Amino acid sequence: MLPESSERAALVRRRELLAHALGSAPALIASGRPRPRNYAADQFPFRASSHFLYLFGLAAQDGLGFYDGQTWTLYLPEPGADDALWDGAVPGFAEVAERTGCPVRSRAELPPVLKGRAVATLPTPDVETCLDVEVLLGRQVRPGKLLPVDEPLAEAMVALRLRHDDAAVAQLRRAAEATTPAHLAGMRATRPGVLEAAVRAAMEAEFVVRDVRPAYQPIVTVHGEVLHNLKYHHVLCEGDLLLADVGGESPGGFACDVTRTWPVTGRFSTTQRELYEVVLRAQKASIALVRPGVGYRDVHLAAHREMARGLVALGILRGDVEELVADGLTALLFPHGIGHLMGLDVHDMEDLGDRAGYAPGRTRSKEFGHRYLRLDRDLEPGMAVTIEPGLYRVPGILEDARLTARAGDRLNRDVLARYADVRGIRIEDDVLVTAEGCEVLTAAIPKEASDVEAVMARR
Amino acid sequence: MLPESSERAALVRRRELLAHALGSAPALIASGRPRPRNYAADQFPFRASSHFLYLFGLAAQDGLGFYDGQTWTLYLPEPGADDALWDGAVPGFAEVAERTGCPVRSRAELPPVLKGRAVATLPTPDVETCLDVEVLLGRQVRPGKLLPVDEPLAEAMVALRLRHDDAAVAQLRRAAEATTPAHLAGMRATRPGVLEAAVRAAMEAEFVVRDVRPAYQPIVTVHGEVLHNLKYHHVLCEGDLLLADVGGESPGGFACDVTRTWPVTGRFSTTQRELYEVVLRAQKASIALVRPGVGYRDVHLAAHREMARGLVALGILRGDVEELVADGLTALLFPHGIGHLMGLDVHDMEDLGDRAGYAPGRTRSKEFGHRYLRLDRDLEPGMAVTIEPGLYRVPGILEDARLTARAGDRLNRDVLARYADVRGIRIEDDVLVTAEGCEVLTAAIPKEASDVEAVMARR
Repeated sequence: MLPESSERAALVRRRELLAHALGSAPALIASGRPRPRNYAADQFPFRASSHFLYLFGLAAQDGLGFYDGQTWTLYLPEPGADDALWDGAVPGFAEVAERTGCPVRSRAELPPVLKGRAVATLPTPDVETCLDVEVLLGRQVRPGKLLPVDEPLAEAMVALRLRHDDAAVAQLRRAAEATTPAHLAGMRATRPGVLEAAVRAAMEAEFVVRDVRPAYQPIVTVHGEVLHNLKYHHVLCEGDLLLADVGGESPGGFACDVTRTWPVTGRFSTTQRELYEVVLRAQKASIALVRPGVGYRDVHLAAHREMARGLVALGILRGDVEELVADGLTALLFPHGIGHLMGLDVHDMEDLGDRAGYAPGRTRSKEFGHRYLRLDRDLEPGMAVTIEPGLYRVPGILEDARLTARAGDRLNRDVLARYADVRGIRIEDDVLVTAEGCEVLTAAIPKEASDVEAVMARR
Repeated sequence: MLPESSERAALVRRRELLAHALGSAPALIASGRPRPRNYAADQFPFRASSHFLYLFGLAAQDGLGFYDGQTWTLYLPEPGADDALWDGAVPGFAEVAERTGCPVRSRAELPPVLKGRAVATLPTPDVETCLDVEVLLGRQVRPGKLLPVDEPLAEAMVALRLRHDDAAVAQLRRAAEATTPAHLAGMRATRPGVLEAAVRAAMEAEFVVRDVRPAYQPIVTVHGEVLHNLKYHHVLCEGDLLLADVGGESPGGFACDVTRTWPVTGRFSTTQRELYEVVLRAQKASIALVRPGVGYRDVHLAAHREMARGLVALGILRGDVEELVADGLTALLFPHGIGHLMGLDVHDMEDLGDRAGYAPGRTRSKEFGHRYLRLDRDLEPGMAVTIEPGLYRVPGILEDARLTARAGDRLNRDVLARYADVRGIRIEDDVLVTAEGCEVLTAAIPKEASDVEAVMARR
């Protein structure tokens, strides 16, 4: 629940920087509370709001950090009479103050402090807390809806969180370290005849055993063509590829987001290998571009170009690479964006809409295959992004006359049909932009086809 | 997502019975939606509201079942344009209607149907859906707060869900079947030197591999004296008992709730065994009382009496058994209730407050050790309850002068101190009240000390 002592300086620094950006304008950041599953006492595991974690590093329920225009104070609920019996002892205010570097007061003291002031806030993902904050601030607070008074706070928070400080990078590394054994265990648990659920179990057990939480609901599927497939009931068959999009969360709440795709038999078939290499080359070409000053949209388009080259070489597409990309031919097989920001959230700061993902003046494309691009900024040192091209045979896209109208004979369906043992491939790494270029945080997880096969050969 | 075909008749019957109870008064039952974890697209696994599951058996998001005073209709959202790409195909309205036995219409058609009518509803655990229903019904809908118009619906639903039908009992059995391997795996994974998290991982993997969800956050702890301990970071030591309160959920959403306590070494020490047997005798004595017509509070008090007998025999308590119970001496070591209702919720229908747990005219005791009793009804065939006595050395209780004031020298602290290798023991089974008596649904999970040791000897 408490931040580590080594993080105190970073937390103090983050609050100082935010205070500097806000000037004399007050701000309130709530931690949120557990979301009920069936009823109030049966809850999903508590996860504090990312903005609160960023500033206080503290997984405290119903906490509120208040900046009064000069200094920060943390307001926490006083423990109830029976809390220790049911939930165990919680750290006292003095200990929290010591670890966070922020004075702590009782939450009961907060309402009069706020009374009559125009205070900026950022809505928590749980509406219960938003409703509480509405009462505290006397105005509407709802997820996804910022009032004008909140905008400068949102902008300041985005500016801060976009470039990770050393403490944040350390957390991202820990999330990546926790994710490596999960993917290795997944590869080792894969064999024909077991359920997708069995592989998921092996992967998640590597998190649970380390007291690590998944950063998002794991995708472990032989139907990778359903992009966010959260079903696990299929039996793994000889000819299947298994797509696993699974990442852990660091103790401080930072995410890792990794996808690997491996053959159920342990050996890629010729057709699987050919398409896998197309995706892998696109992924490496994209990563090679990641450095300060490069536009992320250009990385996205470079992946499409590399994909076009590969698909032309295989005879699946025909024509000029630039034209194939421009006319949306690659989007038919790679319909999502090349990736997104990474941080305390898997899609970092997506709670603030496109404020974080899109630089001022840039907006989402309306075009198929590009409207899901979640990031369009020029890269800067300290940013962390995913690079995750994919190749999918989605019936709903390939059979859609409107979407495929511009393809004509440039999409060779006869050749594509030969790749019947590929439904979906995605290869995803987390990449930190450095002063010189970039560093792949998830490099320890095998992705070369031969390395994946070597892990699986040792099952 | 769909109910099994064999459940259709039961679902139809439940809706008929509820309609009969409601007469011409309309009612709206919402399924709810996934709760966001970090931001809207990063969600906890969706779990439909229990009332909706009871009537429709369907894990549909944003669904609404409407009884117009004569017939039931299910209103479901139409799939969005890109839903199949991201989330996969969902069953069509016709298939849902076939499986649920209820006509299905587009959710968009619902608002005019509701307009101007006084409609009862039961708030979903997620406030997001409550806010939607507030708009639909033009009045307040919040968890834990029923309006007068809702009361007859709540009472009718309690009356229905209190006694499980055959389909519900079948689901409870499946939840129990899924829970057995988890406890066996936990016993086998236990050894000195590993984390609590390692045992939790082994237990949860048995759920995940079967595509079963935990019905509640698992408790796997060497600090059983913290009743709802959700931390997993302690290293298991030679002298520890491990308390595991872990239960799975059936495909239709019914819960299992089981606690076992076992020694880290695989062999109970003499002191551990003595107290374990006290708890086990109390548990068996309580189960032996479960039959139609018996008051659950009397089962609770019988457990206290049996506990008193055992503790007197060990010299931990001194005095007359009845007086020890009446004066709260056993409550010092057994501070919670003997159990609760079981069904679609672990504490069944606790979203409706004490309406389900307490018979009309009965209210919660204010006394320590008895105010947490969640059920005070006369047992009826078809009810399912837990029987879960426990024995805990809670410093916060034993060092509380106010709570222990009446103990005097009847609590022999010197003798209790000899049991230093016991912090918490709980033994919990799920019990179905039958026409003749009762059936322990979780009987396959070993609880005799010798059986537990036999499982652990084969590690």
